[in-house]
Amino acid sequence: MQHGSDEAVTIYDTTLRDGAQAENVHFSLPDKLRIVRKLDELGIAYIEGGWPGSNPKDLAFFREVSTVPLRASRIVAFGSTRKAGVAVDQDPQIRMLLDAGTKAVAVFGKTWLLHVRKVLRVTPEENLEMIRETIAFLKSCGKEVVYDAEHAFDGYQEDPAYALECLEAASEAGADWVVLCDTNGGSLPEKITELTALAARKISSRIGIHTHNDGELAVANALAAVQAGATQVQGTINGYGERTGNCNLISAIANLEIKMGKRVLPPGALSRLQELSYFVDETANLAPNPRAPFVGRCAFAHKGGTHVNAIGKLFRSYEHIEPEIVGNRRRILVGELSGRSNIVLKAKELGLTLREDDARTREALQQVKEMEGKGYEFEAADASFELLLRKRLLPYPPFFQLVEYHVSIRRFPAKEYEVSEATVKLSVKGETVYTVAEGDGPIHALDQALRGGLERFYPDLARVSLRDYKVRILGPMAGTGAVTRVLVESSDGSISWTTVGVSTNIVEASWEALVDSIEYWLLRLERLAGAPLPKAG
Amino acid sequence: MQHGSDEAVTIYDTTLRDGAQAENVHFSLPDKLRIVRKLDELGIAYIEGGWPGSNPKDLAFFREVSTVPLRASRIVAFGSTRKAGVAVDQDPQIRMLLDAGTKAVAVFGKTWLLHVRKVLRVTPEENLEMIRETIAFLKSCGKEVVYDAEHAFDGYQEDPAYALECLEAASEAGADWVVLCDTNGGSLPEKITELTALAARKISSRIGIHTHNDGELAVANALAAVQAGATQVQGTINGYGERTGNCNLISAIANLEIKMGKRVLPPGALSRLQELSYFVDETANLAPNPRAPFVGRCAFAHKGGTHVNAIGKLFRSYEHIEPEIVGNRRRILVGELSGRSNIVLKAKELGLTLREDDARTREALQQVKEMEGKGYEFEAADASFELLLRKRLLPYPPFFQLVEYHVSIRRFPAKEYEVSEATVKLSVKGETVYTVAEGDGPIHALDQALRGGLERFYPDLARVSLRDYKVRILGPMAGTGAVTRVLVESSDGSISWTTVGVSTNIVEASWEALVDSIEYWLLRLERLAGAPLPKAG
Repeated sequence: MQHGSDEAVTIYDTTLRDGAQAENVHFSLPDKLRIVRKLDELGIAYIEGGWPGSNPKDLAFFREVSTVPLRASRIVAFGSTRKAGVAVDQDPQIRMLLDAGTKAVAVFGKTWLLHVRKVLRVTPEENLEMIRETIAFLKSCGKEVVYDAEHAFDGYQEDPAYALECLEAASEAGADWVVLCDTNGGSLPEKITELTALAARKISSRIGIHTHNDGELAVANALAAVQAGATQVQGTINGYGERTGNCNLISAIANLEIKMGKRVLPPGALSRLQELSYFVDETANLAPNPRAPFVGRCAFAHKGGTHVNAIGKLFRSYEHIEPEIVGNRRRILVGELSGRSNIVLKAKELGLTLREDDARTREALQQVKEMEGKGYEFEAADASFELLLRKRLLPYPPFFQLVEYHVSIRRFPAKEYEVSEATVKLSVKGETVYTVAEGDGPIHALDQALRGGLERFYPDLARVSLRDYKVRILGPMAGTGAVTRVLVESSDGSISWTTVGVSTNIVEASWEALVDSIEYWLLRLERLAGAPLPKAG
Repeated sequence: MQHGSDEAVTIYDTTLRDGAQAENVHFSLPDKLRIVRKLDELGIAYIEGGWPGSNPKDLAFFREVSTVPLRASRIVAFGSTRKAGVAVDQDPQIRMLLDAGTKAVAVFGKTWLLHVRKVLRVTPEENLEMIRETIAFLKSCGKEVVYDAEHAFDGYQEDPAYALECLEAASEAGADWVVLCDTNGGSLPEKITELTALAARKISSRIGIHTHNDGELAVANALAAVQAGATQVQGTINGYGERTGNCNLISAIANLEIKMGKRVLPPGALSRLQELSYFVDETANLAPNPRAPFVGRCAFAHKGGTHVNAIGKLFRSYEHIEPEIVGNRRRILVGELSGRSNIVLKAKELGLTLREDDARTREALQQVKEMEGKGYEFEAADASFELLLRKRLLPYPPFFQLVEYHVSIRRFPAKEYEVSEATVKLSVKGETVYTVAEGDGPIHALDQALRGGLERFYPDLARVSLRDYKVRILGPMAGTGAVTRVLVESSDGSISWTTVGVSTNIVEASWEALVDSIEYWLLRLERLAGAPLPKAG
């Protein structure tokens, strides 16, 4: 980590406001409070909580959050400049902004004549008044004021003089921050640099930058602004936001600290970036982006033969930073392109010694490739892959065997009757066990019946629970007859592991993954215990 | 579209080689040939097909592709500089490169002393010889030679003099292109600009740029290089690639043409960017990224109340370009944050006239919000939303009603017996219909039984088929008991539509989506026919 420059950059998070404008992103009130606590833990300076004027849920949020003790973060309520032709202290929207009871408020106003004339439909002078009066009033109420200059860059392109007047009006009215917003997200870095440098010279307020990713340049634009004099970066965790999203704070923070040597987060926080990224995805109920820079599952994954080979000699050879710096880890992928060296390195990760010229290495690779051809994916299912290797390389005791299962789903709307039931017949330790269970659906019922049949023989299984269940339909065009891949993540409270199953039948694919999950854990238990468990009949 | 500058930029696609190194990206030989034809249709100048030296599948590809007539594209075979201590014309890897029989070849070589010493384990002089001899030999064989200077930027940071020597060696040996590669993807734009400008001054070969997205800066870095003198941009469609991916050519092309006024693709091709992006995702069997800049489903989607309101007045107000320029379209989202104006605009899209103050508008919004709370998602399921509006606003004839269904999945490994069977009892036009069908899995069986029961009454349904079936488990932590959302895409050959179902039971969620899909199409048929179809009993 280079730490030449000691300048600080302030992070302003708007995941809860701008981020919530993303398609498919919905936060409940408890979600928002959980995210606030996490952002505070990591030392994010400002958290924009919502727009009290826009919906009641946000008002409730500000009531609740005022009772949450925060160490590092300052909560910000968001709003707009006063309406045209209304006295600022009479504007209900401004009132609600004050009622939010935050130390800091953010207001956005127009910088682009097009918007002034066609959207607000007021005169350029009236718009300037709206900016001045709103900020002056909020300052007179003792607030820290962040002014978001909406469309600053588009406005500057169309009428540089007027855009600059708007920024100066905000600064002269006492705005603590003037934030240049690339609202439509289409600006090139050079345009960002030009206006930011000019604003930094012309106005006395501190400068912030707010970018969107419509040109896939949001992070680059934020960095360009910082180099031109901005000291606040606005964005969202994982880049959530309207359309293509906002500046991804995860990547912005990592670049600012690691590549540009800025002071951004408190010591130790950087190594929790992946945790933060996953936490927010999980709270928003979105699958993490495996290709996410810095924190994604693939960010330090090596698949190509040459790369894996070089990585074996020297990690730096194909990694721009050490994964641990941002809390990520290196992964060697076992995939189509992978040679034997991947199998050997992977086996080593698992504590198994294999030589490249070992026939079993070739056979294992062969089997992996055949199964991948059918749709299995071991990159995401380490436990199934370990199980596969162990079964090939070591004596394997089958803990139980399936004799038969039967799943039945019945629905009878008129009688409001709906049931999912599974019967499972197993052979365990020489006995035949026959169990039945109901569930919320066929997979749940099958899972319940399987556990029911095993609990008497392996009581420790009570500690194992399902953490996540993912379904991926392969071959999009094949409709409901397509091959289905199921990934199951399980946990025993201390460790978690993922297994995979594949079939055209989602129930059978799920069964495979559930069985792998249980076998993997029983094997592990056996190894930890030292003594092998009794064999199945 | 600004077209001030008339300079041309050449696009070099490596989706089939570097792109195939992405986790979860696997191309079959037919896949690769389909993608080649599509890239040629759009006028991509160079297509890197693979590494003949690395695997037999690539050799087969070059044999096959030589028989494909191409109008615009030139196929490139990829390899590396000769091995150390081997005469270049004796190096088997170089031989295979020639055997690929392409007009153009690409070879990569080392620029970074770290790699020369620790990975290749040769002297700096030997590495320079390997670069010179390999390029000179390939030129003597009449090939167009693209030289990829691996780790050019990392190498230049560590030892500028040696890195420059490597680039000059390649140029003096006759390389047609010297491509500066940010192999580890960690460089900032300013570093890209610095070396590219220097290389453009110092060497006579044309300069190319090859970037990776590890810092979320791949596109910005490619644009910076073009501004500093590079005239070739390498990348992959949708940014596939090792780790976090390569430069996304979709965004690079759009920025170069629309924002920087470069000549990149033949006239008319730009408006097919979305088609290209989707085609490659589909071929790679990956779900398109809804947030993808320019071409994503969300790229011109408007959800926030203020934005939707302004868009109603003036599209430019929140869009950086017209969606049609890249073949995309504008969408008004009906979502949690959406006010009545979204409902009204959406209804208008559907040809229904609603007023904001209409009670039905409020009620519809209310119902949408309640259902979204349960996990329904209308943003992706336009047909279910239209059905919901029509049922509220217009007389609706129920085409059929469910009396009962029963799905049964049985597996008996010893007897190799496995069956999924569904029985469906419906009331259609006063009759009770009872049908049974088998399927590849429970959903497929249910779909077959439902269609079997309806075909006698609605024979036109034979034209409707399932295009895609997506399953999303909501609430990751809840395991197999979690709420399941199913999206079904159907088509009648001319149009396609998407419907949604939600339940803790995947079979019931699928049933809902299947029923919506059929009802939507029958309603549409009725409207087109003018005459209403007979009502169900």
